[in-house]
Amino acid sequence: MKRVEQHAAYGGRQEVWTHRSATLGCEMRIGVYLPEQALRGEKRPVLYWLSGLTCTEQNFLTKAGAQAHAARHGLIVIAPDTSPRGDDLPNDAAYDLGQGAGFYVNATEAPWAAHFRMQDYVADELPALVEAHFPASDARGISGHSMGGHGALVTALRRPGRYRSVSAFSPIVAPARAPWGEKAFTAYLGADRAAWQGWDASILVANASERLPFLIDQGLNDEFLAAQLRPEVLVEACKAVDHPIELRLRPGYDHSYYFIASFLGDHFAHHAAALRG
Amino acid sequence: MKRVEQHAAYGGRQEVWTHRSATLGCEMRIGVYLPEQALRGEKRPVLYWLSGLTCTEQNFLTKAGAQAHAARHGLIVIAPDTSPRGDDLPNDAAYDLGQGAGFYVNATEAPWAAHFRMQDYVADELPALVEAHFPASDARGISGHSMGGHGALVTALRRPGRYRSVSAFSPIVAPARAPWGEKAFTAYLGADRAAWQGWDASILVANASERLPFLIDQGLNDEFLAAQLRPEVLVEACKAVDHPIELRLRPGYDHSYYFIASFLGDHFAHHAAALRG
Repeated sequence: MKRVEQHAAYGGRQEVWTHRSATLGCEMRIGVYLPEQALRGEKRPVLYWLSGLTCTEQNFLTKAGAQAHAARHGLIVIAPDTSPRGDDLPNDAAYDLGQGAGFYVNATEAPWAAHFRMQDYVADELPALVEAHFPASDARGISGHSMGGHGALVTALRRPGRYRSVSAFSPIVAPARAPWGEKAFTAYLGADRAAWQGWDASILVANASERLPFLIDQGLNDEFLAAQLRPEVLVEACKAVDHPIELRLRPGYDHSYYFIASFLGDHFAHHAAALRG
Repeated sequence: MKRVEQHAAYGGRQEVWTHRSATLGCEMRIGVYLPEQALRGEKRPVLYWLSGLTCTEQNFLTKAGAQAHAARHGLIVIAPDTSPRGDDLPNDAAYDLGQGAGFYVNATEAPWAAHFRMQDYVADELPALVEAHFPASDARGISGHSMGGHGALVTALRRPGRYRSVSAFSPIVAPARAPWGEKAFTAYLGADRAAWQGWDASILVANASERLPFLIDQGLNDEFLAAQLRPEVLVEACKAVDHPIELRLRPGYDHSYYFIASFLGDHFAHHAAALRG
């Protein structure tokens, strides 16, 4: 691992590291916020943040105001890139497929399958790496935005016991029934929709083996709300199996980082309460 | 004036407006944060923020976390661009001259003099525009970063009575004796250093007609500290005339927005206290 950026921030340090990912077969960049306690070597819980379409690790670092909350609660925050990257890796000219659009799945189809294994990267390789290299405890929370909100929900559902808390902003809760998800899943997982079931939070929740409560914030002025996000689908699916969910609908708010920043403090409080436990 | 962006943020709204500037002879973009009270039509004080080299109005809007503080204190925040802009306007290939590097002076030299009048724009045209178009009171504070910190200090010193509060992050306090300032002033004001005296806070303070206290934050790990910023020059100049100044030196912090974000809350509190008055 190599540190390529470091900035003092709120008494701690915002860093960016690169490493060679065995899972993805490429160099990856990771945002790492270390609160003051961690800089002193104290083991701290970790909040993982998964970003949305077109993002790198930088968007969340620079636009969300997360460092203030991480410092207040003494949390390490890990923000990976949204896909494998590299000129020699498969890509697509569209913003919603290929590099910058990994969708947090393990691809099975050509040309993606060799590298696009973001689920295993995020849920396995990344925590192992973080817990080996930083003063990170094994108390983990996971959150994200849009494609990354989908990633957070699906990852928590697929890996029971791995996370103590989960939340999402404007998540794609039913990607198997939304245009972004249908396009990405067709490419990464193939045309057979049966293979998509394991990657859709609103389907997975029916068989969830743990009752990790979902905290979701959704802007009502979000241009993607009706066609792509549809949080009510997840609310219905949760109701059917009595899975705890709190959906906070926010009048006037859109899909931007201004929305995330406005309510990120609430999500940090939610995670910190569970991670202290 | 035309609104080109709007996002709900912290109960208020972050907007971007464009207008034709008579002073600069071009279209200008302005970031405008309106707290909830202003959206209801209540007149609120205004904090002006001047950004640094290479910035547009976007940097402060997206990276500083200012909306949280503006909402808490009920302040309108105005963040103009850092220079006139346009393909038909003079420019320079360097990052520290021309477009993106207006230095908040009124240029007297060709080819700059016709458009590069950022001082009159910031101190006259902009407040008049803001107070005519938004529910803004005439209680004004001014702050900024680096070149914009210089701009805030110089503007407050040149316009006694116009601002109730001033502060700066990592300001160029003595541009007439720093490489960035020497290059820009030579181009904009000519080679005669006598013409530069009115644009250097550490010189202007000697004849300040009001005792507006300076609040300055400076990171000690700032790569520009020794050669370009030298806050001790302003501290000495203030001491000589008993002008109130508080310089907060911050070990470990650099020149980035992570530094600004870390201490921006303190500056908002400083301005809000004066602007409530």
